[in-house]
Amino acid sequence: MTASRPIAVIILAAGQGTRMKSATHKVLHPVAGRPMLLHLLASVAELKPQRQVVVVGSGREQVEAAVAGTGAVIAVQEKQLGTGHAVAQAHDALAGFAGDILILYGDVPLVRPETMRAMIDRLNMGDEPRAVVLGFRPQDAAAYGRIITDGQGAIEKMVEYKDADATERAVTLCNSGLMAVRSTDLFVLLDQIGNHNAAGEYYLPDIVMLPGAQSAVIEAESWEVAGVNSRAELAGVEADWQDRRRMEAMRDGVTLVAPETVFFAHDTVLGRDVLVEPNVVFGPGVTVADNVTIRAFSHLEGAAIDAGAEIGPYARLRPGAKIGPKAKVGNFVEVKKAELGEGAKINHLSYIGDAVIGAGANIGAGTITCNYDGFFKYRTEIGAGAFIGSNSALVAPVKIGDGAIVAAGSVVTREVEADALCLVRPAQDGKPGWAKRFRARMQARKAAK
Amino acid sequence: MTASRPIAVIILAAGQGTRMKSATHKVLHPVAGRPMLLHLLASVAELKPQRQVVVVGSGREQVEAAVAGTGAVIAVQEKQLGTGHAVAQAHDALAGFAGDILILYGDVPLVRPETMRAMIDRLNMGDEPRAVVLGFRPQDAAAYGRIITDGQGAIEKMVEYKDADATERAVTLCNSGLMAVRSTDLFVLLDQIGNHNAAGEYYLPDIVMLPGAQSAVIEAESWEVAGVNSRAELAGVEADWQDRRRMEAMRDGVTLVAPETVFFAHDTVLGRDVLVEPNVVFGPGVTVADNVTIRAFSHLEGAAIDAGAEIGPYARLRPGAKIGPKAKVGNFVEVKKAELGEGAKINHLSYIGDAVIGAGANIGAGTITCNYDGFFKYRTEIGAGAFIGSNSALVAPVKIGDGAIVAAGSVVTREVEADALCLVRPAQDGKPGWAKRFRARMQARKAAK
Amino acid sequence: MTASRPIAVIILAAGQGTRMKSATHKVLHPVAGRPMLLHLLASVAELKPQRQVVVVGSGREQVEAAVAGTGAVIAVQEKQLGTGHAVAQAHDALAGFAGDILILYGDVPLVRPETMRAMIDRLNMGDEPRAVVLGFRPQDAAAYGRIITDGQGAIEKMVEYKDADATERAVTLCNSGLMAVRSTDLFVLLDQIGNHNAAGEYYLPDIVMLPGAQSAVIEAESWEVAGVNSRAELAGVEADWQDRRRMEAMRDGVTLVAPETVFFAHDTVLGRDVLVEPNVVFGPGVTVADNVTIRAFSHLEGAAIDAGAEIGPYARLRPGAKIGPKAKVGNFVEVKKAELGEGAKINHLSYIGDAVIGAGANIGAGTITCNYDGFFKYRTEIGAGAFIGSNSALVAPVKIGDGAIVAAGSVVTREVEADALCLVRPAQDGKPGWAKRFRARMQARKAAK
Repeated sequence: MTASRPIAVIILAAGQGTRMKSATHKVLHPVAGRPMLLHLLASVAELKPQRQVVVVGSGREQVEAAVAGTGAVIAVQEKQLGTGHAVAQAHDALAGFAGDILILYGDVPLVRPETMRAMIDRLNMGDEPRAVVLGFRPQDAAAYGRIITDGQGAIEKMVEYKDADATERAVTLCNSGLMAVRSTDLFVLLDQIGNHNAAGEYYLPDIVMLPGAQSAVIEAESWEVAGVNSRAELAGVEADWQDRRRMEAMRDGVTLVAPETVFFAHDTVLGRDVLVEPNVVFGPGVTVADNVTIRAFSHLEGAAIDAGAEIGPYARLRPGAKIGPKAKVGNFVEVKKAELGEGAKINHLSYIGDAVIGAGANIGAGTITCNYDGFFKYRTEIGAGAFIGSNSALVAPVKIGDGAIVAAGSVVTREVEADALCLVRPAQDGKPGWAKRFRARMQARKAAK
Repeated sequence: MTASRPIAVIILAAGQGTRMKSATHKVLHPVAGRPMLLHLLASVAELKPQRQVVVVGSGREQVEAAVAGTGAVIAVQEKQLGTGHAVAQAHDALAGFAGDILILYGDVPLVRPETMRAMIDRLNMGDEPRAVVLGFRPQDAAAYGRIITDGQGAIEKMVEYKDADATERAVTLCNSGLMAVRSTDLFVLLDQIGNHNAAGEYYLPDIVMLPGAQSAVIEAESWEVAGVNSRAELAGVEADWQDRRRMEAMRDGVTLVAPETVFFAHDTVLGRDVLVEPNVVFGPGVTVADNVTIRAFSHLEGAAIDAGAEIGPYARLRPGAKIGPKAKVGNFVEVKKAELGEGAKINHLSYIGDAVIGAGANIGAGTITCNYDGFFKYRTEIGAGAFIGSNSALVAPVKIGDGAIVAAGSVVTREVEADALCLVRPAQDGKPGWAKRFRARMQARKAAK
Repeated sequence: MTASRPIAVIILAAGQGTRMKSATHKVLHPVAGRPMLLHLLASVAELKPQRQVVVVGSGREQVEAAVAGTGAVIAVQEKQLGTGHAVAQAHDALAGFAGDILILYGDVPLVRPETMRAMIDRLNMGDEPRAVVLGFRPQDAAAYGRIITDGQGAIEKMVEYKDADATERAVTLCNSGLMAVRSTDLFVLLDQIGNHNAAGEYYLPDIVMLPGAQSAVIEAESWEVAGVNSRAELAGVEADWQDRRRMEAMRDGVTLVAPETVFFAHDTVLGRDVLVEPNVVFGPGVTVADNVTIRAFSHLEGAAIDAGAEIGPYARLRPGAKIGPKAKVGNFVEVKKAELGEGAKINHLSYIGDAVIGAGANIGAGTITCNYDGFFKYRTEIGAGAFIGSNSALVAPVKIGDGAIVAAGSVVTREVEADALCLVRPAQDGKPGWAKRFRARMQARKAAK
């Protein structure tokens, strides 16, 4: 690899996205739980760029809010006068920058950092190409612009599909639109291209065909440069991402019983010998240690799961759920911002929020931590080895001591001492024969209707 | 389009459906939550037919019950003597009808009204074809009968696959069996066809080859004329319908994160910028307004959801659920015949049935409306801004006033005034050291076993 | 079929399985809910073999534990010296055995008993082949060894892909590795093969090319001999198995609305006119009678469901659930080791474990059987026609008589007589205006923060 020069990135995001039919800016639609633009910026971050400019048309506020904290700045293209014109809008934001400029597209989210790096590296090779174009060979080359090379990777011609002759159309190498150009060249070249075409637009690829130095092409896989112009294409990019992530998980020692039914987020972390049953959805922020089983119909977000735990079926883990080693959570149980100790069990129909649960504690079916009074959230502490009887309501803030037992159906409002029994229950009252009389009455009423 | 003449429809539904291995009549098996026959009748209804005749063999009662209210009448084919014979059974039911007759098949459910209309229109064009046959070009033409045309859409010959020579088999245009014929021609022609074939049956397509006027063909897409003879083919037609519906939803501005895991019903209505996570099932009768998010593992039937609401994950909406704007329902919550005001929240493990819930009310985890006494259903009213503590049971009929608070674990049997606190709870009783003694006793008992 | 001679089976399971990246032995990874090795042994059992030998390398203890009770014995291959060497390790375990020996692979789990039987039968045909090799014709023959025959099923040559010339590579018949050989031949032949190859290994197929009698090939379908060397291949074999099982279910009269979303176990039994909605997972041990509907998002294990029952959506049936005719279980309900009588209903948010529920009983929303005290499990009996009010906790051991009514929110600890009303509820206490004052206080506190 050549010595590293400063890098700047221009991300074009000025397209109208009309086909999305959405009030959300196209580049902010998510893939794998993360807006497309942030996928790109995360990949770009691995190149440690000195500058990042996002060129937007309408929807500036949305995009600006989304990139807050990434270091990217916004440039605005007031009129849609083509990709060449769009790139030119980054001129001021790059004032004073000297180095290599990568031109990306906000709706082409899956380009890998390795590929970006390869473009930069090619730009800095001895033959010093004027521009490096990222080409690809799609299954169906359709109406993509073609790249005609000399067979050695130097570009002889770039031609729009509609202007291509039969020989050119037979070429399978297509133009993704992504490009790397030196800062000293880019804006000079952009000044030289015209808009003498049917659409009256300034086309970025035209800089390649300007007189002077030759440009080079390197190739990416098709999936990497797949673009999103409609919700169907968004779903296509998502599906492709998921397939790759599933294969990666299996390669790393995760069993996916039915890979096509498991959905990962961009940052899911999975240990070895994790078993994932069918129909599991991972939202962002989930970490799963070794030997964890995640059973069917589980939905996890922002959760950390320790080794040997068993999650699900029907486990709903929300942000802040920390499940200890060999703990069990399942069967219609929701856990939010709660920490479970080793071997703790919440096996049925419970809601546990804002809580700490000690090792080996057993939370009975239908237990609810009442953590909210409409204004504030309060915390429940359950000691190690405690046993919470079924259908109990723990009204936070409340503490249940180690080894304490709460009788079924209790509403606990005050602290329960360690090893104590807590019983909150009126006497059972029986009315013999009442049900029979009630039924007779009701049947009569029903008959009367 | 030509001037509209009266239309009658004959739907053949006399096939045995043996391969379905079902006690349910083949044409009553559902696609997208609606029996196949009713799909057809719904499409037919758009043509405003004067008469509709369903020709059945066995299972008359089932079919008769299913078409009740559609205006269709039943004709019975006692013996299975072929499609020509089946159509002839509609003769009496069409007595006095003068106009165009469309012949459809109860197990070919997805033919579009546009296609039916196009067949009628073709029948009324200047060349006045004797019959209009609906052709299609299947991916695998297999053993379908072939349609030989003059290249201009006039039929020269229709030939069963087994009788076709190599040239004829090479033709890709196949006969779907659907046909349009004038009422003045149909029964006259049927009288002229014979049953001199291996099966000894009267074949409807034979009317095309009778001496006299020429017939015409128009083409449909393969999926439209896909027939169902087995549960696997039923699943195939369902899958195809779902795929088309998903694409349509995405075109209309709905995000489907994993389209292949979302199942629609025939009448699902979706707004713009609706987001549907993986694994969502829509039963019949669901309407979703703009900007609604439907999270994973939700199941909706007969529900109306207002703009900006958030549904799921694990939301179970049943008929009569009306979810107000920006309301939230999720995490193992079932709602039936209940209306939620704007911004109301039912977020965890609740059953709400036969209820009205005011704007901004907060229903705590584990809340149950006790709406049934084994005989009648009763209604629960919860006022705007009310707060229902977790694990409460609201024994209907009961009213909770605006702004009232129900303490956690309450069983509410009488009205709670607006702004009042309702507390139904015995004193908490602690027995220090009891749990420790209990454990010692139990461990001893376990050891003794 | 020829007269039956004694059969022995050698299953090779000595591969390292490195690509699985698992602490679990490769052959113990499950397909359709059963370890691969046990799939094979179940198929083998239909041949009533006299001996079964599993040859393992590392992981002997795991495999030994897994085959306990199957009659299989373990032989150990200390060093990985090739398949020929592996088979030779079974020599001692087969001492004294006289008959036909079938050689299988622990990671090729789906070979059908019919195919195994056909191999044995071929071995016993008049031409007495020395060995019978199971061939297959993969879609992509890739690098499989080729079988060159005389066109009549006699093998002329077996050749590794890398040693094959262009003509041989063009042959589509590939070697699965499975073989049948007489006991009198096998070990004699193995003694004659060498390890003069790049890997220095003894290859089992080499016995075919030894001088002397000719061997025969019979063909299996590709899916039957699919091998598992990675988790992706495991998922592939699972997917293939599921697809076949789904087609079989549909052929037998089961409607699968979305076949690709339904997952069966190896022993699932389904009646006729069963309807399965999308997203249903069957674990092992489930039997479903005729006319049962299983709605979306249900998860069943070890459950028996009687005719006409309705299960789900969101039903979680665990081992020992016996659902009576026309009973209903659904909407976030878990049933474990419990028997439901005819027409009993548990429709919402309940946990029922270790219980018997009489015919026609109605279990209200949120009912919990408190069956566990941290040490022992106890039993709940609910009589026919009983009505359990919502949010009740039934503290076992406890009995509710026939026709009894338990009021909503009760914690039942003592027997309720038949036809009695059980009421366990403190008086409702109202504090007018309290909520208003509380809100004011809280808003002030919130403002102060």
